[in-house]
Amino acid sequence: MKFKSKAHANIALIKYWGKEDEELIIPKNNSLSLTLDALYTETEVEFIDSKDDIFYLDDELQDEKHTLKISKFIDLFRKKSNNHDRVLVKSYNHVPTAAGLASSASGFSALAVALNKLFRLNLDKTELTRYARKGSGSASRSIFGGFVEWEKGYDDYTSHAKKIDDADWDIAMIILVLNDSKKDISSREAMKKTIETSPLYRGFTESSAEDIKNIKEAIKNKDFKKMGEIAEHNAMKMHATMLSSNPPIMYFKPDSIRAIEKIKQLRKDGFEVYYTMDAGPNVKILCRDSQIENIVKKLKKDFDSKQIIISKVGNDANVREI
Amino acid sequence: MKFKSKAHANIALIKYWGKEDEELIIPKNNSLSLTLDALYTETEVEFIDSKDDIFYLDDELQDEKHTLKISKFIDLFRKKSNNHDRVLVKSYNHVPTAAGLASSASGFSALAVALNKLFRLNLDKTELTRYARKGSGSASRSIFGGFVEWEKGYDDYTSHAKKIDDADWDIAMIILVLNDSKKDISSREAMKKTIETSPLYRGFTESSAEDIKNIKEAIKNKDFKKMGEIAEHNAMKMHATMLSSNPPIMYFKPDSIRAIEKIKQLRKDGFEVYYTMDAGPNVKILCRDSQIENIVKKLKKDFDSKQIIISKVGNDANVREI
Repeated sequence: MKFKSKAHANIALIKYWGKEDEELIIPKNNSLSLTLDALYTETEVEFIDSKDDIFYLDDELQDEKHTLKISKFIDLFRKKSNNHDRVLVKSYNHVPTAAGLASSASGFSALAVALNKLFRLNLDKTELTRYARKGSGSASRSIFGGFVEWEKGYDDYTSHAKKIDDADWDIAMIILVLNDSKKDISSREAMKKTIETSPLYRGFTESSAEDIKNIKEAIKNKDFKKMGEIAEHNAMKMHATMLSSNPPIMYFKPDSIRAIEKIKQLRKDGFEVYYTMDAGPNVKILCRDSQIENIVKKLKKDFDSKQIIISKVGNDANVREI
Repeated sequence: MKFKSKAHANIALIKYWGKEDEELIIPKNNSLSLTLDALYTETEVEFIDSKDDIFYLDDELQDEKHTLKISKFIDLFRKKSNNHDRVLVKSYNHVPTAAGLASSASGFSALAVALNKLFRLNLDKTELTRYARKGSGSASRSIFGGFVEWEKGYDDYTSHAKKIDDADWDIAMIILVLNDSKKDISSREAMKKTIETSPLYRGFTESSAEDIKNIKEAIKNKDFKKMGEIAEHNAMKMHATMLSSNPPIMYFKPDSIRAIEKIKQLRKDGFEVYYTMDAGPNVKILCRDSQIENIVKKLKKDFDSKQIIISKVGNDANVREI
């Protein structure tokens, strides 16, 4: 028996930044994301007769350290099913890895839905968001398509994701890939340093609850402008907490600033475009699907075609037998 | 009788960002700056037989709006001296105006010391910092040379500046002028918006007191490294409060980021260099006077010679009869 799954990346409009519980990955605040069709991970799993799990990423056998992380995750499913067989995992990332494009989100989400089938656990999607969460926090949100909220909760059971809206109302995203090299500091480490050293961090978590409430109302009312404005404010608040860390953590590159200036100009020109950024230099543009052709035409004046990734809204993670 | 004064700009290492009292210009927190020799304003004053004050800036007659601001400031001296004569003011800015290089600081400081003579008030320097403050908050610090602290106080009398140290121990500053055009949003307005809309602002004022205490200790111990690290952290905290405003206020330009990256690289190469930024795109480098030649050589690889201003530490504002 062999299964193949697919899960999409997601871009948070209300950011996850900081853990309440490092072990269980319980976050400091609720987050809310849009699942992206164009960025995804495909994962094949099957049982193997082996002492250890084996993990291939993009056809490359992974070393002990990377495999151990996957094995720890598979252990959750082995424990639940009381089946202690070893697993061969082959993952294919259609996402530039570790450049702030959230490959761990689609990765652990794809692995969770695949292992659910392999171990015949028949867990529902909500339960799978709890499993995915323990691989990588934001992976919990990639179980669902559309707009997804990760409720922070207070323990393993209450901290899970849920779909808010299918986002089937003229929404798309453009990603400007500004630097796909590995980062100086991982988001996991940056998050930790922020909480430890930023005197401004508390204001971020406190105001996130308000942002979540307001953006959910904007989504409900299909108020694109309000949604975009809240997303920009929230993203810059997250970067503000990093910048106020000691020493400062800065993910802005010269091109990130250039991109933000361009987006503001496009907005002045009448396009409905809003920016967000994660723990990396890339800039993501929340936009109207119906305007995407004209927006891309304008972007190409300042950025290389190869830097521009266009994405529709993604669906729920899925899995099939192969 | 005609007097000519000279006052230098200052660059805050611990930033002034936010007013407790808009009218008296009482700040939310203490600030601490370095006075710069290379950037200054010279101001000539004399009484004239005229209905209104007349104000020339760099040989250009200023309009009613600009002159009114100066007249309001002169009113403080007229009231104090009970002499209601009108004044001809000629100022010369050796500072790129309104590009975040604090020309209002040297401007109001120079005007204060000049008017003190003209109106024969014989106010001491501490008292002049109170007058200068009412023209522009940071002007209070330009009355003195070296390292200067502006104590926030709680009323007109207690809110004044004082010299902390002559800064005569191998200290200099390099200013990278990255954009000397007028700003999108004035610092006065940005400051106001920050307080009104940033949920992170409180953390800035709360932690500033700690920064002041620590940097004064570093200055006392001539601990350049510690001083530089505190200054960087404090500057980025200020920019973090702007970035977390709604909508976000961002003074970073692509070149500002490029400059910060360059400074970090220079530090890795063994130079004692630390960055600070104000409400503008320029980047100021706190450095060792003894290393300045080699630092400039390195900077010229990435920046135009015309963008690089070198400054020694400035002295107290002064005035003489001409």
